[in-house]
Amino acid sequence: MPTLMLNADVGESLGSWKMGSDENVIPHVDLANVACGFHASDPDIMRRTVHLARTSNVAVGAHPGYPDLVGFGRRSMACSVLEIENLVLYQIGALAGICRAEGCDLRYVKPHGALYNDMMRDPDKLSAVMRAVAAFDSALPLMVLATRDHAPTRELAERHGVTLWFEAFADRAYTGEGRLVSRRESGAVHHDAKVIVDQALRIARGEALIASDGSELVLAADTLCVHGDNPESIAAVKAIRQALADLEASA
Amino acid sequence: MPTLMLNADVGESLGSWKMGSDENVIPHVDLANVACGFHASDPDIMRRTVHLARTSNVAVGAHPGYPDLVGFGRRSMACSVLEIENLVLYQIGALAGICRAEGCDLRYVKPHGALYNDMMRDPDKLSAVMRAVAAFDSALPLMVLATRDHAPTRELAERHGVTLWFEAFADRAYTGEGRLVSRRESGAVHHDAKVIVDQALRIARGEALIASDGSELVLAADTLCVHGDNPESIAAVKAIRQALADLEASA
Amino acid sequence: MPTLMLNADVGESLGSWKMGSDENVIPHVDLANVACGFHASDPDIMRRTVHLARTSNVAVGAHPGYPDLVGFGRRSMACSVLEIENLVLYQIGALAGICRAEGCDLRYVKPHGALYNDMMRDPDKLSAVMRAVAAFDSALPLMVLATRDHAPTRELAERHGVTLWFEAFADRAYTGEGRLVSRRESGAVHHDAKVIVDQALRIARGEALIASDGSELVLAADTLCVHGDNPESIAAVKAIRQALADLEASA
Amino acid sequence: MPTLMLNADVGESLGSWKMGSDENVIPHVDLANVACGFHASDPDIMRRTVHLARTSNVAVGAHPGYPDLVGFGRRSMACSVLEIENLVLYQIGALAGICRAEGCDLRYVKPHGALYNDMMRDPDKLSAVMRAVAAFDSALPLMVLATRDHAPTRELAERHGVTLWFEAFADRAYTGEGRLVSRRESGAVHHDAKVIVDQALRIARGEALIASDGSELVLAADTLCVHGDNPESIAAVKAIRQALADLEASA
Repeated sequence: MPTLMLNADVGESLGSWKMGSDENVIPHVDLANVACGFHASDPDIMRRTVHLARTSNVAVGAHPGYPDLVGFGRRSMACSVLEIENLVLYQIGALAGICRAEGCDLRYVKPHGALYNDMMRDPDKLSAVMRAVAAFDSALPLMVLATRDHAPTRELAERHGVTLWFEAFADRAYTGEGRLVSRRESGAVHHDAKVIVDQALRIARGEALIASDGSELVLAADTLCVHGDNPESIAAVKAIRQALADLEASA
Repeated sequence: MPTLMLNADVGESLGSWKMGSDENVIPHVDLANVACGFHASDPDIMRRTVHLARTSNVAVGAHPGYPDLVGFGRRSMACSVLEIENLVLYQIGALAGICRAEGCDLRYVKPHGALYNDMMRDPDKLSAVMRAVAAFDSALPLMVLATRDHAPTRELAERHGVTLWFEAFADRAYTGEGRLVSRRESGAVHHDAKVIVDQALRIARGEALIASDGSELVLAADTLCVHGDNPESIAAVKAIRQALADLEASA
Repeated sequence: MPTLMLNADVGESLGSWKMGSDENVIPHVDLANVACGFHASDPDIMRRTVHLARTSNVAVGAHPGYPDLVGFGRRSMACSVLEIENLVLYQIGALAGICRAEGCDLRYVKPHGALYNDMMRDPDKLSAVMRAVAAFDSALPLMVLATRDHAPTRELAERHGVTLWFEAFADRAYTGEGRLVSRRESGAVHHDAKVIVDQALRIARGEALIASDGSELVLAADTLCVHGDNPESIAAVKAIRQALADLEASA
Repeated sequence: MPTLMLNADVGESLGSWKMGSDENVIPHVDLANVACGFHASDPDIMRRTVHLARTSNVAVGAHPGYPDLVGFGRRSMACSVLEIENLVLYQIGALAGICRAEGCDLRYVKPHGALYNDMMRDPDKLSAVMRAVAAFDSALPLMVLATRDHAPTRELAERHGVTLWFEAFADRAYTGEGRLVSRRESGAVHHDAKVIVDQALRIARGEALIASDGSELVLAADTLCVHGDNPESIAAVKAIRQALADLEASA
């Protein structure tokens, strides 16, 4: 695995509805976050997506979400911590079963959308997710957002016996606390490929970004989240990939 | 395990809706067929049901069904064989994940309702279910209906490398072919506890029943399906249990 | 219609799962809040429930909720105001269609569970509900919670051209602001039938209750919410009914 | 309305998943068959689709389907006739409510996918659909498949007091009985625009087609079903439209 792994959300189609361009993005990433049927996907699409990832030598991760197809898991739901623990566990198991049928291992867990945001804001919800991961297989890393200060999250993870992978974004602006600037604000998303590749390289080298409040922000990250919804984003993935490969070759 | 294991469908509640009386029936059976969220149940109920089975030393089996909550999985759906394979696999995996969290093993698979009936009528659908079981874990027995002639089903199972458990019913009348008499016909369901216990004992001893066409019918069965929806059915379960225990003690 | 109408949530079964005791409670109320399929019910149960209400001369109201069967519409969801407007409109229309087939009119709208709580807390969400009601039929009253001060809600309703029915609870304690004491706090729910009937009569006479902070609270209400889930609650409904009838007879 | 109206299935997106190209096809048809949330669509998409149809002066019809998002309503489900009646009624009502909010009328009903096929094969299911339409509004035409002999369908419709619109296909081959040749057979779908326009004109003029068994087949049709999923099909819609307009102008 490279120093900074690339991860992408895939398998987000549903029945007759296609989303994304998995066959074009999967070959260029290291980690495939596969939707598990609650906010997107169905058993057939999960099977095809895992097959595609396996034959592309890409690690499969579970991408569980809230049970909300119409809202694509992006609407926060007031689930109890027990409900969160069990819905994550259910979805991990379902995808792990499909991995088993495809002859590969489930390798990590990354919650989706509103569930991801909720767990990053609420330690009780993060603990619920950690309990699910630890109960299923404490060797599975849980992917969480890289922020300015990882200590509280690390502490929680240690208490639950869970390994963490921190993820950063090359195409998003960050606040001074190291949170993502809300998409509702202007400048939240970078569109210029050069800016995106530059941010990726800074993160890979451990160099500071300039946060939206002007402060310097160093993000200690294991993986970068990339997107494969359109030709532009896939071109950006390839450019990041090449830049990271050049960086490693020069090391 | 006794010669003739008792199995019951459990975990069929959904959210705020309660069904059955799991805490009263689980202690009296050997095998708990746990619904997996497609026709009934949800992640919380699955967790509680597996916990109850485990603490009662009852083996947990997956009870996958068609994706149809309103119809409780009793309405046949024209799913393709690939769809059947994958929806069974998904549900087995989901329940296996919950078993893992509860520290027990998933022990077998019994399809539910219309899916069960469809697979018993259509060898292509039965093969699809077998492929799912074999792909997940070929050591998991698949429960199927005991009929007059097991040869075709056994042959299919051998081809797929799957073990079978045959189940019979103590409270249902049988046709000459060894199929269940349709519930729409009178006399399809036995209500008299004595008749039920007598049929259970005949099956356990390998003695013939009298089918609805007057022919003798020997059902080679590994397990009896029992019900726990009301006090009468639970009383019948206990009576069958006692009768089978007496039979074994006298052997 | 009596001065203080009784309303009850009904039609909350789903497929094979039964909830409540509609046939026992509907004859004793004036208003039947019928679930519309998003948090409970299905088209068959809606049809049967409307039929039962119509033949009992009970007015049918739409009881729309968030799309969440597993959570029974009790988990708040971060729906946009446009999503709320349209999901309320959809559910009102669906039930109105069933009323039309049963030869009766839809008479009012009462949002359910978390949607009801959310609209009482957030004027933007309440406006979204009002837009749905007004767009469907501005003659349909919208049921909202009676609190200490109805002015802000009335103002919003006037702006949207919507009529309001205020509902109060005979079996719940109130805060000083005239909100319901959370069920998580002790004393939130009255269980003593005498206390319940007394609170119903105070509300009917326009007399003050004693709020949880000791202050006097007058609730100007059009309707009382009652429950029909068990024999005790149905007995309470009958007692309230009788007490209100006696009050009117003595007027 | 022209002699031969064009109808298209629209509003088949779901949440974040887009399907079809409604904004490109709606302006070229007379009748918009709007999905109602069971096999596709959601309240927001229904609202937007009805708005688009209304502002394009296109009549809105309800396009109810089986409750099966993953299968897109294309998998037959063993629903009872009562279930069919009520699920059609529910969906008609829901869409009618949205039409009311948009200030237009619901104009007709066309069942979708497997429900459409099932009702054309089984008079009991067709009767169930007719009961739903008649119960909601017997002035709403029900769209059914034009075949060789309309007498049995007309008789059933008269018994239920329902008006029929017969629909034919310009891009599909027909069997000798006037049924559509299954898509699984070669030659079932016409791809050549000239062939499609020629078949449309023959149907419009009441001229015979040549069925797959070589026999002549006259289809008495009120409407042609067209598709708007891709640029080719939209070009075909425009060509049919022009050819029919020329035909009417020359009449």
